[in-house]
Amino acid sequence: MTAEIAEQPAVLGRLAGRHAEFLDQIRAALPEPLAGTALLARGSSDNVAVYGRYLIELTSRRPAGLAAPSLHTRYGADADYGGYLVVALSQSGATPEIVQAASAMRRSGAVVVAITNEPDSPLARACQVTLPTGAGPELAVPATKTVTAQMLAIVAVAAAFDPGVVSAADLAALPAAVERVVADDAPARALASRWERAGRLVVTGRGMAYAAALETALKIKESARVHAEGLSSADLLHGPIAALDDGLPVLIVAGGERLAADEAELAARLARIGVPAATCGPAPGADLPLPEAGEILLPVLATVRGQQLALAAALRRGLDPDAPAGLAKVTATH
Amino acid sequence: MTAEIAEQPAVLGRLAGRHAEFLDQIRAALPEPLAGTALLARGSSDNVAVYGRYLIELTSRRPAGLAAPSLHTRYGADADYGGYLVVALSQSGATPEIVQAASAMRRSGAVVVAITNEPDSPLARACQVTLPTGAGPELAVPATKTVTAQMLAIVAVAAAFDPGVVSAADLAALPAAVERVVADDAPARALASRWERAGRLVVTGRGMAYAAALETALKIKESARVHAEGLSSADLLHGPIAALDDGLPVLIVAGGERLAADEAELAARLARIGVPAATCGPAPGADLPLPEAGEILLPVLATVRGQQLALAAALRRGLDPDAPAGLAKVTATH
Repeated sequence: MTAEIAEQPAVLGRLAGRHAEFLDQIRAALPEPLAGTALLARGSSDNVAVYGRYLIELTSRRPAGLAAPSLHTRYGADADYGGYLVVALSQSGATPEIVQAASAMRRSGAVVVAITNEPDSPLARACQVTLPTGAGPELAVPATKTVTAQMLAIVAVAAAFDPGVVSAADLAALPAAVERVVADDAPARALASRWERAGRLVVTGRGMAYAAALETALKIKESARVHAEGLSSADLLHGPIAALDDGLPVLIVAGGERLAADEAELAARLARIGVPAATCGPAPGADLPLPEAGEILLPVLATVRGQQLALAAALRRGLDPDAPAGLAKVTATH
Repeated sequence: MTAEIAEQPAVLGRLAGRHAEFLDQIRAALPEPLAGTALLARGSSDNVAVYGRYLIELTSRRPAGLAAPSLHTRYGADADYGGYLVVALSQSGATPEIVQAASAMRRSGAVVVAITNEPDSPLARACQVTLPTGAGPELAVPATKTVTAQMLAIVAVAAAFDPGVVSAADLAALPAAVERVVADDAPARALASRWERAGRLVVTGRGMAYAAALETALKIKESARVHAEGLSSADLLHGPIAALDDGLPVLIVAGGERLAADEAELAARLARIGVPAATCGPAPGADLPLPEAGEILLPVLATVRGQQLALAAALRRGLDPDAPAGLAKVTATH
């Protein structure tokens, strides 16, 4: 896991170099007119799908949402996907339910784009277009480099509708920014130490940062066996805040200027009720500091910080982060 | 909360009596052709939206998914919602972000249906059609009767596309089935007692039962201040299962015959790793037994059992379930 986290600047640099090519592939395949977009995934890939649903609704200017695989694998749904773009994400390209649902959606009229690390996988074969993440073999069970690679590939899908969603300068600067995060894991180790005794954790964020919060929580669960729950900060205020106490710390993942007021309000409310909190973001004084990256790419950096935190927490607990108890690399949910 | 839980058979009986009228109202307003459906909600209403997204994709035979309110309130999305049905759910009809997002979607071309307990609310005024849940004033902060009422209203939305989704007999039998659950809270009290020392809990289910699992977890958080997380059972197997241990019990919410094999597989896996589990369903021997109801309405009964469990857990912990610390009835997220 340590080695794969460190490979991310190189992986993202290669993908940034293929950005224009990916745009062309997507554009050539897009349904016209577009009825909407559905994102199909499970696990870490589903957190990338959350990131993508925001980006794609913003740029395609048509609704985007997450698909429910069980509608296809359990309920035999025969919905008409004509006019839909479906983005199917799977590191292995071999999760049976994702392959089955993607195939069903294609048969029902969708243009299906696969984002996968295995361009010869069953998922790639089932889809019209494949964007290979090219992250190289990922051996640790908790996915790291394939997750941020999927994030950058889904930025390319969004950019196919509106290339201005990410500037060439921001894209070119991303690998170095990730390198800065990767090169300094002291903040993650310090936070893992501070929260060493917490067997429970909430990771929260809003908008695109919600995706990074979900992924950070999942990574902590898988690697460090800490019951970390990812919650939208708006949902947190809507009820779950009642379950917080001084033994249940909250990590707030920043999402850029538009969300700064939400984050400040939440932090103030947590302080009033005595709940320990930490922040991950570009603001000075953040517990997990991030370089500036523009709001679109900020969640990629936050995801890397989350991986570091999960790894540090696992090592502190004497766990093997590469092979968590009870998990296999390809999950055979149908 | 106790009184409001007990009112549910009457509330649901009244709503079942308006089923045909609701169908007519929806049908008269539906976009033609339908591009898709988006469900807009927050908190408990968002759990009802999860239930609705399955039902509506099945019956409308076009994709359905959950909307992201912050796209409209934080990112200034200007997506074209032409051809879309939007179902906006809010007990109070006064949550600012839901009213704002519903208004934006209507301006962008959507037909917006409000499901609310307040037919004169800002949300109702912002939408073309209102289905009033008519549950009467709900005083306890944790929503109960308005949640199951929203569920039945969303069944009517789905039935507008295909009345056969729920039989007249199942609909007519629902109030009595709910009455049977309400009349016997001994199983919920027994489980609350068995898990008294668990400060953490996972509630899981798949497909439509996932909605009941999410709502049960939220109710337990709000009422009993237990860190209960709702997870799809497929997601649970995809990673979070690594974080389970003998101090983190799992409640499995049954979803009917199509999901029985999934539930049995999960229960066996939990047993192998020594994680305590309980079940909520119609099968003999369930810890939280449910009357038979057909797979479409089963989540309504499971939701009522979940309310009972949350209430029993709160009372056991000496908490006031009607007024949990730190929560207000109308959450002012923007």
